[in-house]
Amino acid sequence: MENEHEYDVVVLGAGPVGENVVDRVRAAGLTAAIVEAELLGGECSYWACMPSKALLRPVLARSDARKVPGLREAVYGPLDALDVFAHRDETVGHWKDDGQVDWLDSIGVRVYRGHGSLAGPRRVTVDGPEGEHHVLTARHAVAVCTGSRAVLPPLPGLSGARPWTSREATSADRVPGRLVVVGGGVVGVEMATAWHALGSHVTLLVRGDGLLPRMEPFVGERVAEALRARGADVLTGVSVEAVVRDGGSGPVTVVLEGGDTVEGDEVLFATGRAPRTESVGLETVGLEPGSWLDVDDSLRVTGTDWLYAVGDVNHRALLTHQGKYQARIAGAAIAARAAGGASDAAPWGPLAASADHGAVPQVVFCDPEAAAVGLSLAEAERAGHRVRAVDVEMSSVAGAGLYAQGYRGRARLVVDLDREVLLGATFVGPAVGELLHAATVAVTAEVPVARLWHAVPSYPTLSEVWLRLLEAYRDGADPA
Amino acid sequence: MENEHEYDVVVLGAGPVGENVVDRVRAAGLTAAIVEAELLGGECSYWACMPSKALLRPVLARSDARKVPGLREAVYGPLDALDVFAHRDETVGHWKDDGQVDWLDSIGVRVYRGHGSLAGPRRVTVDGPEGEHHVLTARHAVAVCTGSRAVLPPLPGLSGARPWTSREATSADRVPGRLVVVGGGVVGVEMATAWHALGSHVTLLVRGDGLLPRMEPFVGERVAEALRARGADVLTGVSVEAVVRDGGSGPVTVVLEGGDTVEGDEVLFATGRAPRTESVGLETVGLEPGSWLDVDDSLRVTGTDWLYAVGDVNHRALLTHQGKYQARIAGAAIAARAAGGASDAAPWGPLAASADHGAVPQVVFCDPEAAAVGLSLAEAERAGHRVRAVDVEMSSVAGAGLYAQGYRGRARLVVDLDREVLLGATFVGPAVGELLHAATVAVTAEVPVARLWHAVPSYPTLSEVWLRLLEAYRDGADPA
Repeated sequence: MENEHEYDVVVLGAGPVGENVVDRVRAAGLTAAIVEAELLGGECSYWACMPSKALLRPVLARSDARKVPGLREAVYGPLDALDVFAHRDETVGHWKDDGQVDWLDSIGVRVYRGHGSLAGPRRVTVDGPEGEHHVLTARHAVAVCTGSRAVLPPLPGLSGARPWTSREATSADRVPGRLVVVGGGVVGVEMATAWHALGSHVTLLVRGDGLLPRMEPFVGERVAEALRARGADVLTGVSVEAVVRDGGSGPVTVVLEGGDTVEGDEVLFATGRAPRTESVGLETVGLEPGSWLDVDDSLRVTGTDWLYAVGDVNHRALLTHQGKYQARIAGAAIAARAAGGASDAAPWGPLAASADHGAVPQVVFCDPEAAAVGLSLAEAERAGHRVRAVDVEMSSVAGAGLYAQGYRGRARLVVDLDREVLLGATFVGPAVGELLHAATVAVTAEVPVARLWHAVPSYPTLSEVWLRLLEAYRDGADPA
Repeated sequence: MENEHEYDVVVLGAGPVGENVVDRVRAAGLTAAIVEAELLGGECSYWACMPSKALLRPVLARSDARKVPGLREAVYGPLDALDVFAHRDETVGHWKDDGQVDWLDSIGVRVYRGHGSLAGPRRVTVDGPEGEHHVLTARHAVAVCTGSRAVLPPLPGLSGARPWTSREATSADRVPGRLVVVGGGVVGVEMATAWHALGSHVTLLVRGDGLLPRMEPFVGERVAEALRARGADVLTGVSVEAVVRDGGSGPVTVVLEGGDTVEGDEVLFATGRAPRTESVGLETVGLEPGSWLDVDDSLRVTGTDWLYAVGDVNHRALLTHQGKYQARIAGAAIAARAAGGASDAAPWGPLAASADHGAVPQVVFCDPEAAAVGLSLAEAERAGHRVRAVDVEMSSVAGAGLYAQGYRGRARLVVDLDREVLLGATFVGPAVGELLHAATVAVTAEVPVARLWHAVPSYPTLSEVWLRLLEAYRDGADPA
């Protein structure tokens, strides 16, 4: 039996991004339905940000406490892994989505459980878990918010070796004796950090020169140095050629190019993401299944006037917070167009995701923490800006020595010399994650350096690194 | 024997403020001398910010760690007070100023040890510890940077009771069994927090309605609630009438208005500050000894063209970081005028301490931490602004629950409804100190709320409270 329903807006995917789209269009008075085959709340809530941070916060808190006089002796013991897992399980709501269901109900959004797929312009079909079939028509817009998934490389033996992806790495409730992590991006580094602290011997295998390659090079250097100092093995410039699970349930052997091998009890592949667009009916509207979707700054798919792609699927920035930002803007744009009003898509206006282009922030919860916003020095130079980078060791800040004895960290500003505004900022060191937002405001608002001198950081916080950075810029300025 | 010397600039007081003045005028090529009777480095380095934060960081780290799964059991024991004291002693350089001497030498500033005093316009006399006497002439400017000192009220018995002031409270190396703290401002609250955690039974006596009265009322409420929950006694609306030290060395009895008494082993008076201007020769230049000194935005004393008063002595903001900010500006203004150039004292220019008027940040390292910048709601209303305050419970932020189980905190923005910019921001909760600088940038740079929406906080940090605050402002906006 087929049921036909009409809504103003239909959203595919009920992660944080899809939820924010329906929230905004509902607030504008439109009707909305949302389709989800898995848990409402999405990857981030159950298998990414939330559980990974629940695993990492105890690790970072212990690491910092070990550098605090009066306390350090007390925290030399191992982490209580069972306590950490129990908290992680609670943080993800024991992988149940009742709270999300209640919230969507409360704002009047119809939830369809099942697999949603485009069936031509403005039409979506839903195949439910018990054979039910729905056809949804969208008066104004369909938004694809299906996110991304971990990609496993096509290596001999890999599928039989039952590798971990980010999902298993964030939901496991047993500490492997030896964990091999393949990939030096955010997931690889964060999970290497967590499982090392929970008791695994970790070997991190990285194809490139360093860790966290999308940030300034000194970040990866500091993080690798710290992982090694704590006893993890970090191998860079290595390529995995095959993976073998002994007897199907024994240890895993990872074979590297050149023939060296690394053995582990589990192996995590954190080697990239692909858009979850392979089976959402893109072919019915002339788009390529499995592709990232090109969008304009209102998140509308190029060449359509009704299809939006929001969050990971558009490949602008694979970050929950940036997807939610896009969702607020897409929701507002859909509502403005539905109302027939002038759609103000001017840069930095309410209907343009301008921050995606040069003001995307990211915090990596490794030890030491890493945080960056905007352009790295290399990115700024490649983009043709006339820039200068200023670097400061965090140890020059009084607040750093107070925060943790032997505090080690570094900060960088990338300054546009023509406009004297910040294009980017990067921090690595204990507890720098909360330092980032000041830089995000400065970059986003294009605050002139001359005005930043009047933004006084409180003494003696870590934020006083801002003063050191401005001084470094002033004192190293061209003699002009 | 008398020695006469001439400099471009003479600075009285070698705390952080005086040091920053000479640093800036030296950088501009002027000659400078600095006069100090105590330790170079000032109150902040030896008896205020630095030692107090060295005492408080272990307290706050332990408090936070007790809310972290996997770690909480490990940190239930008492702090190792001897370890904390040893670190505090190291932080203050064991009350020696060799490093400061070396630095002033390195930038070519002549240091005069002894008591400095004005002797008419542009003249300073110095009386050294071994009877030496110098007369210094300042070609361009004299800067009074002598700071402030704790004031003891004129109570019967107080002087014989040997009360602690902030100096003793930050330098003591023995934990009193019972400590009575008089005063609910920053010093009282921070020292009550530290000594309670180090093992004292603390009774905090406050004359007014609440703690930290210069911040939004909810801050003091939360801090008092937390102190009480940990077992401290907090009494508000009480007035001390007399203090008696039993037999001169026994316990101290504090007598309250109405006759109630509180007994302690030590009593700390944290009841206010007075300018250290009573014996710096103000009378020789027509000013009132012991008074706070009125200055313009370049920190020049009203009615003079050569005398500057920088830091606590001008009573604009009794905070080290704000004094250093003023010092950079005063140094630049002195140098610009010495060069005969146009002095650009336009608001927010390099020669005007504009932030003093509405963008002063402060972090209080109590438990929970408190941080505020700009105007409180009441201050903004008194100043005639048309404003709205938006409040958010920090527990609504995913990052808060990850940072500490049962995280309790609150944030407020005060928005100018006419210009749609922030006039103030306040945070209370674990680890909010580093959240403040983003607000300081936003207030100082007068960033429009519409642009702040594009400054995306990283998920899941505590900084995501910014998103909640903007949402609260949007959703509670007047229906217009």
